[in-house]
Amino acid sequence: MIVATGRARRPMDFSREPVKPHANGFCPFCYGSEQKTPPEVLAFRPDGTGNQPGWSLRVVPNKFPVLEIEGQLDREGEGMFDRMNGLGAHEVLIETPDHAATLAGLSEKQVEDLLWAFRNRVLDLKRDGRLRYTVMFKNHGEAAGATLDHTHSQLIALPVIPKVVKEELDGAKSYYDYKERCIFCDIIQQELRTNARLVIETDYFVVLCPYAARFPFETWILPKRHEAHFEESDPPTLQNLAWVLRGTLRKIDQALESPAYNFIIHTAPLQEGPMPHYHWHIEIMPKLTRVAGFEWATGFHINPTPPEEAAKFLRETGIA
Amino acid sequence: MIVATGRARRPMDFSREPVKPHANGFCPFCYGSEQKTPPEVLAFRPDGTGNQPGWSLRVVPNKFPVLEIEGQLDREGEGMFDRMNGLGAHEVLIETPDHAATLAGLSEKQVEDLLWAFRNRVLDLKRDGRLRYTVMFKNHGEAAGATLDHTHSQLIALPVIPKVVKEELDGAKSYYDYKERCIFCDIIQQELRTNARLVIETDYFVVLCPYAARFPFETWILPKRHEAHFEESDPPTLQNLAWVLRGTLRKIDQALESPAYNFIIHTAPLQEGPMPHYHWHIEIMPKLTRVAGFEWATGFHINPTPPEEAAKFLRETGIA
Repeated sequence: MIVATGRARRPMDFSREPVKPHANGFCPFCYGSEQKTPPEVLAFRPDGTGNQPGWSLRVVPNKFPVLEIEGQLDREGEGMFDRMNGLGAHEVLIETPDHAATLAGLSEKQVEDLLWAFRNRVLDLKRDGRLRYTVMFKNHGEAAGATLDHTHSQLIALPVIPKVVKEELDGAKSYYDYKERCIFCDIIQQELRTNARLVIETDYFVVLCPYAARFPFETWILPKRHEAHFEESDPPTLQNLAWVLRGTLRKIDQALESPAYNFIIHTAPLQEGPMPHYHWHIEIMPKLTRVAGFEWATGFHINPTPPEEAAKFLRETGIA
Repeated sequence: MIVATGRARRPMDFSREPVKPHANGFCPFCYGSEQKTPPEVLAFRPDGTGNQPGWSLRVVPNKFPVLEIEGQLDREGEGMFDRMNGLGAHEVLIETPDHAATLAGLSEKQVEDLLWAFRNRVLDLKRDGRLRYTVMFKNHGEAAGATLDHTHSQLIALPVIPKVVKEELDGAKSYYDYKERCIFCDIIQQELRTNARLVIETDYFVVLCPYAARFPFETWILPKRHEAHFEESDPPTLQNLAWVLRGTLRKIDQALESPAYNFIIHTAPLQEGPMPHYHWHIEIMPKLTRVAGFEWATGFHINPTPPEEAAKFLRETGIA
């Protein structure tokens, strides 16, 4: 990335469009709309009460999926071009029945439930050998691509390993081949030593603004213990992650006035065993700038806020 | 890319925020503000009248550059991380003194002047051996990243070949090594044969919606004659390109109600000689959808409009 220090850099220099859920009539994710979504594949609720009110978290297939689970994986050509069909799964994790809530505003227990739901769905989808990768993410706010206000996360299982993931895996593998150490473990060590980009440290996690951050206030959450697969996290790790994720989102809300954001859980491919070179983590990207022609043309990002400054702001912001 | 046909697809299905320049007080790109920008590096105007009104097109260094031309290229380490300084050039091409104009609304001659300005600036910057690549692009409308209303394009010269360009060059090279033909020449031949994705054909250019388009209504302009470097275009080619680019932008304005857009001139690296495997072209990306978590996580784009349908709409839309 390119740090352009002649440009906006402090939190108050970005234009603010705080994300607020509106109550505007019918919502398919509220109590009473359970029949308007496809039937749930997972829900936290009293036993024997499927697809009706009473749940605290609900996972349902997306009604307008980008990929569907039925059918066979086919590949074909069209002249010089190649095509494959869109086999996969696209699920929505409705984080709460409360239409006015945001993820940062939920209780620790509710955030932990979301993490358990991701974990359980991945473990289930993993049994389908055709699926190679699960993308877990959240779009918060219209500017970050959310099309429904009611707070939710998403999971898309794919029959291929995505390009961006492959590049990250390959990069980590080259580093490992050269040094026989995990690059993420090394980053954690270096960041704990210098402290300049550190936001939060707990027994289980490190939260930091990464060196060469692509976006202002981009923030990563990394588990201290080396582990390639998110879904291998044990109960104390998920419990601590709930506190850390909620705390980080609350700091971002506080420092930047509830910006739109995306978060993505970066994890190892579904069908791979343990990987000494890869390390799962979460990347949170507040949506403060727009991606324009230069970024599309080059893949370089212009970041007006050095990560050291972003980390300092977040460190000094209370969790509230 | 993933074509998701259960989603919005026709022009009227996208939310519309037509881009209109506002007259809101001071503008550094209007007549009379010539002293408010850095001195011009190129202008089309009567001789001997630099940095005052009378120009029809003006190229000036960006006042808030992402990179600067002065200084030496240095590389250094910070622990495990690498850093280089931001040597380069960042220039703004002010396409007209008319604050209310858009590029699509300019005359053919004015569009041709813009193309000549790009060409002349590249030929000049090329003489600086430290510069490896020139990114030429336009952000039209706030949603596409424009920060000033007054219509302008941009040029950024870099001391490295950007990642996205390198990938495109490498992909084209692999194809050439295998087939001994330019992949872009092959695409042009196939598209002219099938016609399904064709928008405009002239003696010099082909305009098409590419197979596996990342974005709805993504449109490419390719010269029929093989040439790696945009700046090698001869006068008749640039003259015809002005008609083709203007016509394509007017079709997009008409079909999609003046959307925000980015265009990027994809061209070969500055210091390379002729390349049999690479072929310069322009990519136009109307801003109709938002890039969200899934796209960032995977590098895959969800396109709700198959390129065949986009091409049909644009073909049937008059140039006006």
